[in-house]
Amino acid sequence: MTENDHIMDHSMRPIELDKESTTPLYQQIVEQVKAYLADGSLHIGDQLPPGRALAATLGVHRTTVINAYAELQSEGIIDSHVGRGTFVAAVPETPVSRTPRPSFTPMVWDSMFVTDPSQDRLHKLIDLQRRKDVISFACALPSPELFPLEDIRTCVNRVLRKEGQALLQIGDSFGYDPLREHLIDGLSHHGIQASMDEVLITNGCQQSLDLIRKILVQPGDTVLIENPTYPGALNVFSTRDVRCIGIPVGAEGIDLAALEHVLVHNQPKLLYTIPTFHNPTGSTLDLAGRRRLLQLASLYRVPVVEDDIYGELRYEGSPLPSLKALDDRGIVIYLNSVSKIGFPGMRVGWVVAHRAVIDRLRVARQSQDFHTNLISQAALCELSSSGLLTRHLKRVRKVYAERRNRLLSALERYFPEGTRWSRPAGGMNVWITLPRSIHASSILSEVAQLGVLFTPGEMFYGNSPQLNTMRLPFSMLDSARMEEGVKRIARVLKKHMSQTPAGPEPGKRAVLV
Amino acid sequence: MTENDHIMDHSMRPIELDKESTTPLYQQIVEQVKAYLADGSLHIGDQLPPGRALAATLGVHRTTVINAYAELQSEGIIDSHVGRGTFVAAVPETPVSRTPRPSFTPMVWDSMFVTDPSQDRLHKLIDLQRRKDVISFACALPSPELFPLEDIRTCVNRVLRKEGQALLQIGDSFGYDPLREHLIDGLSHHGIQASMDEVLITNGCQQSLDLIRKILVQPGDTVLIENPTYPGALNVFSTRDVRCIGIPVGAEGIDLAALEHVLVHNQPKLLYTIPTFHNPTGSTLDLAGRRRLLQLASLYRVPVVEDDIYGELRYEGSPLPSLKALDDRGIVIYLNSVSKIGFPGMRVGWVVAHRAVIDRLRVARQSQDFHTNLISQAALCELSSSGLLTRHLKRVRKVYAERRNRLLSALERYFPEGTRWSRPAGGMNVWITLPRSIHASSILSEVAQLGVLFTPGEMFYGNSPQLNTMRLPFSMLDSARMEEGVKRIARVLKKHMSQTPAGPEPGKRAVLV
Repeated sequence: MTENDHIMDHSMRPIELDKESTTPLYQQIVEQVKAYLADGSLHIGDQLPPGRALAATLGVHRTTVINAYAELQSEGIIDSHVGRGTFVAAVPETPVSRTPRPSFTPMVWDSMFVTDPSQDRLHKLIDLQRRKDVISFACALPSPELFPLEDIRTCVNRVLRKEGQALLQIGDSFGYDPLREHLIDGLSHHGIQASMDEVLITNGCQQSLDLIRKILVQPGDTVLIENPTYPGALNVFSTRDVRCIGIPVGAEGIDLAALEHVLVHNQPKLLYTIPTFHNPTGSTLDLAGRRRLLQLASLYRVPVVEDDIYGELRYEGSPLPSLKALDDRGIVIYLNSVSKIGFPGMRVGWVVAHRAVIDRLRVARQSQDFHTNLISQAALCELSSSGLLTRHLKRVRKVYAERRNRLLSALERYFPEGTRWSRPAGGMNVWITLPRSIHASSILSEVAQLGVLFTPGEMFYGNSPQLNTMRLPFSMLDSARMEEGVKRIARVLKKHMSQTPAGPEPGKRAVLV
Repeated sequence: MTENDHIMDHSMRPIELDKESTTPLYQQIVEQVKAYLADGSLHIGDQLPPGRALAATLGVHRTTVINAYAELQSEGIIDSHVGRGTFVAAVPETPVSRTPRPSFTPMVWDSMFVTDPSQDRLHKLIDLQRRKDVISFACALPSPELFPLEDIRTCVNRVLRKEGQALLQIGDSFGYDPLREHLIDGLSHHGIQASMDEVLITNGCQQSLDLIRKILVQPGDTVLIENPTYPGALNVFSTRDVRCIGIPVGAEGIDLAALEHVLVHNQPKLLYTIPTFHNPTGSTLDLAGRRRLLQLASLYRVPVVEDDIYGELRYEGSPLPSLKALDDRGIVIYLNSVSKIGFPGMRVGWVVAHRAVIDRLRVARQSQDFHTNLISQAALCELSSSGLLTRHLKRVRKVYAERRNRLLSALERYFPEGTRWSRPAGGMNVWITLPRSIHASSILSEVAQLGVLFTPGEMFYGNSPQLNTMRLPFSMLDSARMEEGVKRIARVLKKHMSQTPAGPEPGKRAVLV
């Protein structure tokens, strides 16, 4: 008998289940297998049917069979071999009892989950970032040595003294009213007119995206994202049950021709875009592009989720109006937070949108975690109202502008011919394109051995990744470490480029992610 | 012609769509309706087909037709009458152009949402609670005048001075390590042994429940909850796409016979229970009941989500072990938070569970909002490590015990014969059962006119509500206001009870909620 014959040979005496019995179904399977062993219908070495097949035959959940097999395996009666199957390993010594008895085997959790363990794109970056003694380009985060610690401490004390009782009690899911009023005032200076029922405080853009998905997207729906994009958006939208289409992003921002082509053939529930200082490419959509994007969205009635998290970090040129400032039809859902301009550990962001959207988001928020912690909301409101946040912003803009210049000039000096990079007017990220034959992930371990970390561009793609890309954020590193980091990456790059011939650039097109 | 004939008469000349055209489908519908008006195929007063029917005929999303009709209505060409239908109201003056043109009508949001606007059970309570100058029994919340404000301010200052930079930077989704270590130490004094990979910090039990649903429950699954239960759990589990079965809760806690009956006939993904000082009934499951519950859960392999949020608020008797302390199979997912013992505005809670569960929760948390704000986590850790939280707990236990006693004696003195109530050994809630003919919601407005608020028991039921129940939390009111509140409710009750005859008590059984 060949091994293949053996694998196919699992015609076991049928198992009969009593679905009205108080004995759990998995336990009934266990009892019958034991009974068949006791009466000689099953022998050591016999194969049991695959779990999925037995579940189908018996008309039970697959989990039921998994639990039965786990129980039999824990008692040493059966044995599973990956790729071969499940076999009788021993015959139980004691006679089989027909009364149910509680199982003392541990819970088999792995068969229970409906989510994937591996979608954790961002933790990998943050874990890398935490490693000591490395020059890390891994994360686009604010520079902690610039945090205005004393100002924040002053503000926290002020608000706790002023209204500590209210800040420690439960609050409203809209958010802390004085902060919402203050934001509305600030938004009006950026051309966005909003009323109190059009602003909701969240724990940052990540939560805003998660809540937006909850109210607008159901299984089977189509969503448009940029490709590449913020990995946290991929975590929210690029899941098993959503059809997620990536629109290419170039040096001038989202590819509007590709967007139009996709809109003609699909009916997406939303478009998620970062029009200003895009993460990871650093690109910005110009004014004409913004108007065209809104025209397309209006024409095809597709809500636009605008992530403006880098908008305040401009180092040159005049500010462009946000999509929300140009939106006269209530089609834009505007997101922002303090996580790039300030303090991601505080977890404070906001959504500005049509009141119907805010109303649903508030209800969704209510069952998610009620509201953002009030001490952070109040302290931030105090920091901003008293002008201290503006002072902080001036300082970080100056420092980050210098760091961007330093990174660009280091790239100019050290990076080999055949590499290209973006020259962002703001934000935190420079996007590198290597010759097509060089995959950023394949040089990462060598670069890490030299004490430098970066994030391969492929982590920002939902699908069809450009493997020859990498993101270098400049916000966290001082001049000396930045220059040293670039030098070391360049050293590894040169070695690899001298070994592999250059190929043509890949085409850019809309891709299903 | 009868109105009914008229309603049925919507045989319009067929609309033809070009699905490859760059003109959006809704716009094509608009153009063709206008063309039919122009060439005389449609006249003023003619009825258009219902949106859903036209969408089915054309094979497009219902949203497409809704958008088309909204556009035509905004131009004054059609008119909709609720219950009658959609009719041609005017013929456009200008000739119809076949080129697409952007719509300037506002976004029609209401047809876009996939969630319900009305599930907002908790906000109603919180909004009631906020009204000034009322004696409010609406919410079970800690008493703000007991907050140890100076202690908290001291702790916030201490942690900001010690590690402000780290607390303002992005953190890990597991939570702040020193707080997790501190919690593990505290849990061991309560008979729960946990390691670092078995503890996750959340923004409170509400978020813990939301994350648990995300990793364990998918559309079509069955979930067991207690009936009545915490309304926030209803917001999470009692939704359109989940089969939610309520297990009755009596004076001795969850009805284990009903639970077993349901387990025999269903394969639920989890059981959510509050075994200690249950919300809203105040009941506690005894030790034998806890062991039996775990035995049933093990036998039927159903994860148990144990909400221990009131566990520390015991005013008499010896502490019982939590289900988690008795759990030797890793089947219990344990939830707790500081929202009842302390400070709900801080939004800090925790989950203790098998590492496989924590691993999935951490990934889900990552894409939901990254982590709980670090200042609150660190301040709470400091407050607890320095013994200040224990001091606070002693104080609130003493005050809440007095308030419970005061409420029970006021009920004894003022409530009419024929009413019954629970005598909870801890927690915040007394559960009142009125004669069957008296519905708590029907006396609420009269009670409110006397300046008193409470929550009708029906708000805590997923389905089959006992309408003759109400919840009176005692944590927020001092003696004088408590007594006055009870007196006023009693006054209204007596009036109603003298008008209606008493009926038999309703039976208790497992119900689909």
